[in-house]
Amino acid sequence: MSKETDEEIDSEFIIKLTDFLGFDKERVRHLIEKNYLARNWGRYEYLLRFDKEISHIERGTILYEKDSSFEMITGFPKIRRAMVLDPTVKKHFIGLEKVAVEEKMNGYNVRIAAVRDDILAFTRSGYVCPYTTQKVKEKLSLKFFEDFPELVLYAEMVGPDNPYISKDIYNVESVEFYVFDVREKNSGKPFSISKKREILKKYGFYQAKFFGKIALETAPEEIGKIVRKLGETEREGVVIKDPEMILSPLKYTSSQSNCADLRHAFKFYNETGRDYMLSRIVREGFQTVEWNESEYEFEKRCMQLGKSILNPLRESIKNVKEGHRLCEEARIRVRNLKIVVDFQEYLNRLGVDAIFEEPQFVGGEYLITIKKLNKSTTDKTQAIWQGELW
Amino acid sequence: MSKETDEEIDSEFIIKLTDFLGFDKERVRHLIEKNYLARNWGRYEYLLRFDKEISHIERGTILYEKDSSFEMITGFPKIRRAMVLDPTVKKHFIGLEKVAVEEKMNGYNVRIAAVRDDILAFTRSGYVCPYTTQKVKEKLSLKFFEDFPELVLYAEMVGPDNPYISKDIYNVESVEFYVFDVREKNSGKPFSISKKREILKKYGFYQAKFFGKIALETAPEEIGKIVRKLGETEREGVVIKDPEMILSPLKYTSSQSNCADLRHAFKFYNETGRDYMLSRIVREGFQTVEWNESEYEFEKRCMQLGKSILNPLRESIKNVKEGHRLCEEARIRVRNLKIVVDFQEYLNRLGVDAIFEEPQFVGGEYLITIKKLNKSTTDKTQAIWQGELW
Repeated sequence: MSKETDEEIDSEFIIKLTDFLGFDKERVRHLIEKNYLARNWGRYEYLLRFDKEISHIERGTILYEKDSSFEMITGFPKIRRAMVLDPTVKKHFIGLEKVAVEEKMNGYNVRIAAVRDDILAFTRSGYVCPYTTQKVKEKLSLKFFEDFPELVLYAEMVGPDNPYISKDIYNVESVEFYVFDVREKNSGKPFSISKKREILKKYGFYQAKFFGKIALETAPEEIGKIVRKLGETEREGVVIKDPEMILSPLKYTSSQSNCADLRHAFKFYNETGRDYMLSRIVREGFQTVEWNESEYEFEKRCMQLGKSILNPLRESIKNVKEGHRLCEEARIRVRNLKIVVDFQEYLNRLGVDAIFEEPQFVGGEYLITIKKLNKSTTDKTQAIWQGELW
Repeated sequence: MSKETDEEIDSEFIIKLTDFLGFDKERVRHLIEKNYLARNWGRYEYLLRFDKEISHIERGTILYEKDSSFEMITGFPKIRRAMVLDPTVKKHFIGLEKVAVEEKMNGYNVRIAAVRDDILAFTRSGYVCPYTTQKVKEKLSLKFFEDFPELVLYAEMVGPDNPYISKDIYNVESVEFYVFDVREKNSGKPFSISKKREILKKYGFYQAKFFGKIALETAPEEIGKIVRKLGETEREGVVIKDPEMILSPLKYTSSQSNCADLRHAFKFYNETGRDYMLSRIVREGFQTVEWNESEYEFEKRCMQLGKSILNPLRESIKNVKEGHRLCEEARIRVRNLKIVVDFQEYLNRLGVDAIFEEPQFVGGEYLITIKKLNKSTTDKTQAIWQGELW
């Protein structure tokens, strides 16, 4: 293809995009040039993703040509956090009689949709993850997408064979997809809670646990109880929703979840953002005051916080002292080793420094341990052990 | 004075500065325009201070006309920190047989020098603090500055009547100045440890505690013991020095000092830098590994860390909930109320939001409590209690 033809096609493509997005041509060109509107690679090159929030289009939104126009899969809307339940919940949902409360699960956020005769799983940033896509095909009833090609499932991938966030707490053997939102393509319009739960049930999808609709007046107290209960089994917390999904949802998490975040953060202390650490610590302060804890409970919380910080720090510092390099272990499970190659290439493209160990054949499938290297914390810790100054 | 004359004087002044600093004229003009080389105010307008490190001239360095040239009081050299004692101390002081170990006190850093027939106390940033200057005149034998007008004392102002860092741990009734360095004006050249201790003793100055000269080979272990002992009485740590003061010093602090920093940091969590918090936490991790602590000691350290963080957080969050505004209390003690007015104006000029309470007449002097308001943390906490999202 000659350079001229390339440019002509490009021009035509940009005009079509201009029409669809309602931006002017210069702006669209700028977005492409800056890679704010970037292409996936390989066979998914036709999928554009917003690498940045642009005029209310969420980061991670996906765009591709469909018939003579475009189709859009909107990104994950950012869910804001209540630091205290009272008065935040009452104030945010003012005017509603009841709020719907669902479990916030600790997994990997994916969107699943039919795209050009295929079913794809998109990450938060808008990449097609080959491993997650394969798992979707194995685990979900795909008839849903035949019946509703215009809908997108917003789900949490949970379980031990999750290469991103591996958790054993959900009683899942390998991985499962827990759907928490159903939305329309293009508009991103969500289903109401009841409509969502009904359609998901019909197709046999797992759903985030539903704690029912709770009167707004008593919601802070009741949600407090639910979150404390969830915390006892290391579960993350809740998302509080307008049953009609018109007002935006709020999240609130358990102390155990804050501490789990801190354990991970301090294990890789030089990789983690300072704001990430601080916000989780400050949450502990607000929770103990809002819940009016006794000195005994407070001391327990102090000990838990101190250990959540110092234990992983000590582990990492010791490990490096003994000559190890720090890494995060994850695991995947596949039927076909081709997926491993695809996934490895995918991580590579994303710049993740990962070592894939030899596949183990178990129960008709292959288990592969992946070690993601944490170079920054390893190098910093090593330098300190070699006498470098802070 | 006409504008022309102003500019002429300015030009002459800049030429002289150019000669003294060895910078070109454009650079000097730039430093003045950007306020990197800024004037003190009022009667101290003739004192220039470097508000930024410029070509190896430390931030806080002071410059003023003297005879037909200039005189310079160099800033506090930044003392770097050992995160672990072994091998850092051995590596940093390689080639020395012994290192000198002095206590690092927790007070307010001031430089004291004779300037144009007056004795002045300069802060780390190069301001003349009227309160500290007055205290210097009451507390120190000023004959030293008559005998050695070319020398500068680098000291720590400690004690409860310190409006900056008030501590009761040093058995000081009001405030005292503990000198830790003697340096020449202009060059900033320090006295050797023995020469310094001798001259300070002769004039009856207080000095930072001296732990003697320690063989480099055993220094990490012995310093570890000293720091643990210091920690037992909440003292800060040590500065490790080349006895000849040719190599730069190193500092190392106790766990109790890290935790005291954290208590202050989390009390005003929205004012404090995230890096400040993290560095103090990470030090705890390295210390427990380097000192090879037992599980019992480790648990104690976790509890201490957790409490150092959550206690002040809880206090602040509760206080704001109950309608209080957060502030830091300090105290000054003066013989003459004129100093209070000067100090109030001084803090005001620096942009510190402080309330001075009514003076209490005690033992022939006035005690004044000062409340420095922490607006940022108060406002943030208040907003959260009013239901604002994070």
